[in-house]
Amino acid sequence: MVGSALTTSVAAVIVAGGTGERFGDPGGKQLASAAGEPVLARTIDAFTACDLISEIIVAVHPDRISEFQGALRSSGVAMDSILVIAGGETRQQSVANGLAAIKGAHRIVAVHDGARPVVSADLIERAIHAIESKQCDGVVVGHPSFDTLKLVDDDRIVDTPDRSRYWVVQTPQVFLVDVLRAAHAAAVTDGYQGTDDASLVERNGGDVRVLEGPRENIKVTVPADLGFVEAILRSREDQE
Amino acid sequence: MVGSALTTSVAAVIVAGGTGERFGDPGGKQLASAAGEPVLARTIDAFTACDLISEIIVAVHPDRISEFQGALRSSGVAMDSILVIAGGETRQQSVANGLAAIKGAHRIVAVHDGARPVVSADLIERAIHAIESKQCDGVVVGHPSFDTLKLVDDDRIVDTPDRSRYWVVQTPQVFLVDVLRAAHAAAVTDGYQGTDDASLVERNGGDVRVLEGPRENIKVTVPADLGFVEAILRSREDQE
Repeated sequence: MVGSALTTSVAAVIVAGGTGERFGDPGGKQLASAAGEPVLARTIDAFTACDLISEIIVAVHPDRISEFQGALRSSGVAMDSILVIAGGETRQQSVANGLAAIKGAHRIVAVHDGARPVVSADLIERAIHAIESKQCDGVVVGHPSFDTLKLVDDDRIVDTPDRSRYWVVQTPQVFLVDVLRAAHAAAVTDGYQGTDDASLVERNGGDVRVLEGPRENIKVTVPADLGFVEAILRSREDQE
Repeated sequence: MVGSALTTSVAAVIVAGGTGERFGDPGGKQLASAAGEPVLARTIDAFTACDLISEIIVAVHPDRISEFQGALRSSGVAMDSILVIAGGETRQQSVANGLAAIKGAHRIVAVHDGARPVVSADLIERAIHAIESKQCDGVVVGHPSFDTLKLVDDDRIVDTPDRSRYWVVQTPQVFLVDVLRAAHAAAVTDGYQGTDDASLVERNGGDVRVLEGPRENIKVTVPADLGFVEAILRSREDQE
């Protein structure tokens, strides 16, 4: 199924609506500079560079739509290739708003965190192809945990689970559009909040698989992560 | 208890005896170059720079002792400040060999992976001070998982555990010497193999705590990690 015509039209929902509390800076992490370009602009660039993506929706804080539009335009983002919409109060609500804003009759949607600027067009493409080749409802990029995991109460270790069975997962998370919409609707009905979209699909009975991606696809969470991201981007440019 | 005289004499056991199967290169990851210096030499440098450490034991593959000694000497490691010994068949056995080789009457030992060259003297020191301030048997450096965790069977996600309770842990792992020795002895008796030293102490009833450290303290596992480490080191040098 890889390379099927069905995969050639995919929507992307990029969520950038958080308050970035852990980041500390009131300006937020999405517009913070990573090697001279806002984090979110770098993220969007990877999606516009991916030929399989034909519609990109970016959900931002409702009060900051024009500010984000201005910053992205100044950074050279092709504004006619994206739609900036108002996000919701939670990440989950922002994704739901994004799903509702999709215009095309796409079969597949890729959900991604705006604060993961190290993502590449190649990784997005691999995730999209994987949902076809694995014939499943969703594919989540991540990697098996390289480090030992500990279950912790306060600061005390209470268990060391078998790390070989645990994956650390990121975004992009790619789904059949209908399946993801149904999962979001069910979560609303049940009042369920998940930390990612896959958990919504999983609890709704969906078949979600993992796909191994690079560990450096980190989510900018604290300001120190920006130096980390810059280092990765610089290292990537050196290799080109 | 921080700053107690008892903390001023600490042994370090650095394990570098693995075959590095996942690394692929027959030369192994320990002597691979990270920004012009072997990974293991960078790791050792952080320990020699830590004033609290007064004895450093480096466990390497039994067939490669002289090769490692030569490479470390060429890299400017002060060879009179370290003892290179033969590691065992497993990481756990290598740590046990290191514990047996400690000469001084230290109360505390820091165990560290040779392949974590991003460690700093400051991080080692903080872990040593924490074992005093927390009055526990061991302290493990790590961080709460930033990303969602998934329990995976083959490539299929079967559960999304509550990530807020999970830490991703690294080394250094710092212990009371007597407690760690007893835990290793108990593991031998029971035929138990753990992925880290803390798990041995935990199962033997020890009180092990976590201490938050930087996420970039990664273990070089695959060759691509070297570029990642170089980027981090370069970014750190830029900040100095």
